[in-house]
Amino acid sequence: MFDYRRELEKAARQMILIHDTRLLTKLILRTVVRSLKIKHAGFFLYRRDKDDYLLTVSKGERGLRVPEGFAKVSKNNPLIRYFLEEDKKINKNNFLLYEELSDFLKKGYFKKKKDLRVFFEELKFQLELFKAKVCIPGFFRNRLIGILFLGDKINKKTFLPEELGFLSVLTSDVVMAVQNVWLFEDLKSQLEKNRNLFLSLVKALASAIEAKDKYTSGHTERVTSYALILLEEIAKMKKFSPSRYKSLREKLKIASLLHDIGKIGVSEKILNKKGFLTKEERKEIEKHPLLGAEIMKPVEEFKDIIEAVKHHHERYDGKGYPDGLKGRKIPFLSAIISVADAYDAMTSERPYRSALSKEEAIKVAESQSKKQFHPLVVKALLKLCKKGKL
Amino acid sequence: MFDYRRELEKAARQMILIHDTRLLTKLILRTVVRSLKIKHAGFFLYRRDKDDYLLTVSKGERGLRVPEGFAKVSKNNPLIRYFLEEDKKINKNNFLLYEELSDFLKKGYFKKKKDLRVFFEELKFQLELFKAKVCIPGFFRNRLIGILFLGDKINKKTFLPEELGFLSVLTSDVVMAVQNVWLFEDLKSQLEKNRNLFLSLVKALASAIEAKDKYTSGHTERVTSYALILLEEIAKMKKFSPSRYKSLREKLKIASLLHDIGKIGVSEKILNKKGFLTKEERKEIEKHPLLGAEIMKPVEEFKDIIEAVKHHHERYDGKGYPDGLKGRKIPFLSAIISVADAYDAMTSERPYRSALSKEEAIKVAESQSKKQFHPLVVKALLKLCKKGKL
Repeated sequence: MFDYRRELEKAARQMILIHDTRLLTKLILRTVVRSLKIKHAGFFLYRRDKDDYLLTVSKGERGLRVPEGFAKVSKNNPLIRYFLEEDKKINKNNFLLYEELSDFLKKGYFKKKKDLRVFFEELKFQLELFKAKVCIPGFFRNRLIGILFLGDKINKKTFLPEELGFLSVLTSDVVMAVQNVWLFEDLKSQLEKNRNLFLSLVKALASAIEAKDKYTSGHTERVTSYALILLEEIAKMKKFSPSRYKSLREKLKIASLLHDIGKIGVSEKILNKKGFLTKEERKEIEKHPLLGAEIMKPVEEFKDIIEAVKHHHERYDGKGYPDGLKGRKIPFLSAIISVADAYDAMTSERPYRSALSKEEAIKVAESQSKKQFHPLVVKALLKLCKKGKL
Repeated sequence: MFDYRRELEKAARQMILIHDTRLLTKLILRTVVRSLKIKHAGFFLYRRDKDDYLLTVSKGERGLRVPEGFAKVSKNNPLIRYFLEEDKKINKNNFLLYEELSDFLKKGYFKKKKDLRVFFEELKFQLELFKAKVCIPGFFRNRLIGILFLGDKINKKTFLPEELGFLSVLTSDVVMAVQNVWLFEDLKSQLEKNRNLFLSLVKALASAIEAKDKYTSGHTERVTSYALILLEEIAKMKKFSPSRYKSLREKLKIASLLHDIGKIGVSEKILNKKGFLTKEERKEIEKHPLLGAEIMKPVEEFKDIIEAVKHHHERYDGKGYPDGLKGRKIPFLSAIISVADAYDAMTSERPYRSALSKEEAIKVAESQSKKQFHPLVVKALLKLCKKGKL
């Protein structure tokens, strides 16, 4: 019984829990180098995005080490071609041995086939470059996923056939683990893609709705970006955990984009009226947060977002609408949207007044701390202004 | 070197590519039974959704076989409790051996502790129920994920310590593979959840937009369901591949839900006008497919959906709008939405006319085959009617 087996099998088993191809190959290389007592080893792993092979190397003996992160090889590298092209085999098994290749060349096997001789000389050069004595390919359905290569053994002995056989099985284990990781990566990128798709649709619809209101072009996107930097600032001030911040940010983004969605239910006449509104018209327009909440009600997962939209016109002093909520009873996300919304309104041109300057708007916001606005959000707004982030 | 090892190790390796816990346990059980020559074996696997343990059994010898799919055990089963409760260990190792337990009970170890005696008697009964001679637990971070149990060896010999050690490692391999599958399941269910969230938001927004048009309550949802059954019928008639059908269905669903989204840009006055429209008003309303396409334009992934929305008022004879496309130049999804849209309009009450009956509407559609409508879609509509699916 060979000792190295047990250790390598243990490493192979751990692979299933590693979802990073780089870590995978490092784990295997470290174990191969240690258990077989070889000077260094490396793994060329196929990269799906670049269609090439990236090298990971073990931390082998000093001087013999191939610089890490340095090497990648293209599909046209002789090392890769050797395993992919049928006419290039120099023996019956799957491995490529440096000694065997040297012998072949020495004995002048390819005298008459110049192309082949050039190919094998280049291949030999590649093996020397990486100080590779043995190369073991790993396939998945005819696709070359990776190549494990080994440097010299520390005791200079040659590799035994059973060692090579075992390493070959190990290489196919690595290939299977890589397939597993790729599947995870695919699912995750699908998730990310869907998330982006969702957000761009929300954005598109929000701006379509905004377009009904002639005077607020770009308002939604600006409110969203103000709201997000306000949250970022508050998260720093209050030291939110990364997971709390992430979850709030996600919700705030959607809520900000959709905060005025209820305007879809407000008559265009009122939305586009120039000059001041009658009491009744004002009442009509003040329905929009509630209407927005109504629209999204069937989306069960949106509970917090719906609450945020519903209350974005509440005031800290309780004089807002629709429910006259006060202080901490106002959802936190609403308090942020409220400030972002007002800040954008103040700094934008309106038919009946010109835009306030940044500084003027901040002053108004400050004077409304604890009246219209949550003091913490106003504080964050001031900080952002000082940092030049507004 | 034990022969069974090689076979079991190979099976353990294959597990990484199996993303179904049931298949996983079956593969391992089959290999265990065959390589160790035992009468039967089983695996209790934790189910996260039910918080219990489901049994998978090997196809062992006739008569000894536990009925498949029959057994599940609760967390309170002595078999589970034995491995989870510290005070229940009868030996130092991880296994539970039937012979050892029998001995314990025979020798009257628990005479003074009635609770324990009852517990172990119940445990013994459970082992007898499943004809289990050995039970090997598999943990992941203190959580009991599964229990492998083995029946008698065919040659009636007892299990060797090294066999049990090896099977214990194998069980933890299974546990790791199960973790891997669970991770996949989590990602997939996240994807599914996001997809549903996306659709419910689209639905909510579509009905908000529809609400602008007083006369079309429920129109969007009905058009969507007609469009989907039309596609289903066409897919059968034309023998679409499952993947083509799935991709078309996904797009059709979103396009149908959003087909009238452009109405958001049409003045309410016109949308809600009773009686006939002037030429100009008609022109205004006929902008809605184009407006819908405009709104969704920033959503790059929606290319086909945008095309479908843009052209849902084209006519097969080229007399439709906005582009007067003809016949096969009209996107296939638009041709379907067009029929679904018209069918729902005809069978719905309007202020200026009453609803047509199903049969009347079908007749109109038939008469418009190759004129307003794509003949294939009309054919599908007729088939659906005959099948009573409308």
